[in-house]
Amino acid sequence: MREAYHLELGQLADHLGGMCSMVAEAMELATRALLETNLSIAEQVISGDEKIDDARSACEEHAYALLALQAPVATDLRTVLAAIHAAESLERMGDLALHVAKAARRRHPSPVLPEPVHGYFAEMGRVAVQLARKAEAVIRSQDVAAARALEDADDEMDDLHRHLFTVIMNKDWPHGVASAVDVTLLGRFYERYADHAVSVAKRVVFVVTGRMPGSFGDEDV
Amino acid sequence: MREAYHLELGQLADHLGGMCSMVAEAMELATRALLETNLSIAEQVISGDEKIDDARSACEEHAYALLALQAPVATDLRTVLAAIHAAESLERMGDLALHVAKAARRRHPSPVLPEPVHGYFAEMGRVAVQLARKAEAVIRSQDVAAARALEDADDEMDDLHRHLFTVIMNKDWPHGVASAVDVTLLGRFYERYADHAVSVAKRVVFVVTGRMPGSFGDEDV
Repeated sequence: MREAYHLELGQLADHLGGMCSMVAEAMELATRALLETNLSIAEQVISGDEKIDDARSACEEHAYALLALQAPVATDLRTVLAAIHAAESLERMGDLALHVAKAARRRHPSPVLPEPVHGYFAEMGRVAVQLARKAEAVIRSQDVAAARALEDADDEMDDLHRHLFTVIMNKDWPHGVASAVDVTLLGRFYERYADHAVSVAKRVVFVVTGRMPGSFGDEDV
Repeated sequence: MREAYHLELGQLADHLGGMCSMVAEAMELATRALLETNLSIAEQVISGDEKIDDARSACEEHAYALLALQAPVATDLRTVLAAIHAAESLERMGDLALHVAKAARRRHPSPVLPEPVHGYFAEMGRVAVQLARKAEAVIRSQDVAAARALEDADDEMDDLHRHLFTVIMNKDWPHGVASAVDVTLLGRFYERYADHAVSVAKRVVFVVTGRMPGSFGDEDV
């Protein structure tokens, strides 16, 4: 009975790991759609979001079934609840990739990004995808040190985001207000995606250590 | 025993109702700080956010204790899980009010908002606070019809948000890029606040009906 239960918990972690992989791919493709002004890749991300939503519902139902049938306590209970929270964050990461893809589609065939900020978004995309992949590794390994390493990647994202703002706010920005608005929202989507990845890792730390890491991963706006 | 349990569930709902009231007040004050360029009100919201975070932790611990000690099933289980989700959304609403207050502080003594968008933010503030108050009523009454009424208020927010963008994007916007960036982010904070209020109401509908409302409250970006 206990063994069957831990097998089920393992399957739930597998599902979450699978969700990480899905949202990493969604953000990778959305970033390509944005940088390459590629409509068909944008459409692929947009139509793929439903699968991420379904994966979240499946995780949540699995977690509910575990709670109802097994009535876990202590760490097992925390694990199931952490899985429910993680699935929510991961669905949100999928939504943020979807917003990036929709922005690419909305402006097509014009590019959304003026040339001087291309490099920032290439980097933010790289860091975002890396964070989702690291969150996957943390879920699969339950390695607290690996979870803390996400903080560094998130700091990198915050730095990129801050620098991006100095570029937009520069008095010599020649690309107009509409373009600044697009860049502002897109920057925010990447930054929030990173925050959610950190929050997934924090939940894993909580499961392993029984304590919620404080400063680690706090949002900075 | 069952009666004691339902008493505890009632207390948990009371805590959540109290959180709604806290985040409604935070957004009301943050909007005043923004519109009146009032630093001391902004500081009040900023220092008050910790109380909202504490209330969320207390709700979550209360919910965990109920799960661990009582091992609820069926609707009781859904109720406790909905409470955990609702507490998360409410903390996030508090964070969004905090962001508004921080924007007011960051630009002080200059106003953040150029005059032509004042009316939009006064309205968005009013609708946001109304949504939080309605979410409180839904939590306390578990009234599904009242929950659906939140949708109308959220549509109002989406309309305001859309119109705000047409104002910023207008070629004659004379207030510069930096100001457009501030207005863009602030608009997003109000819109997300409203989305979270709707999500709280959706969870209550789920508890009462056993089915998650679909279209109702979907995010539109």
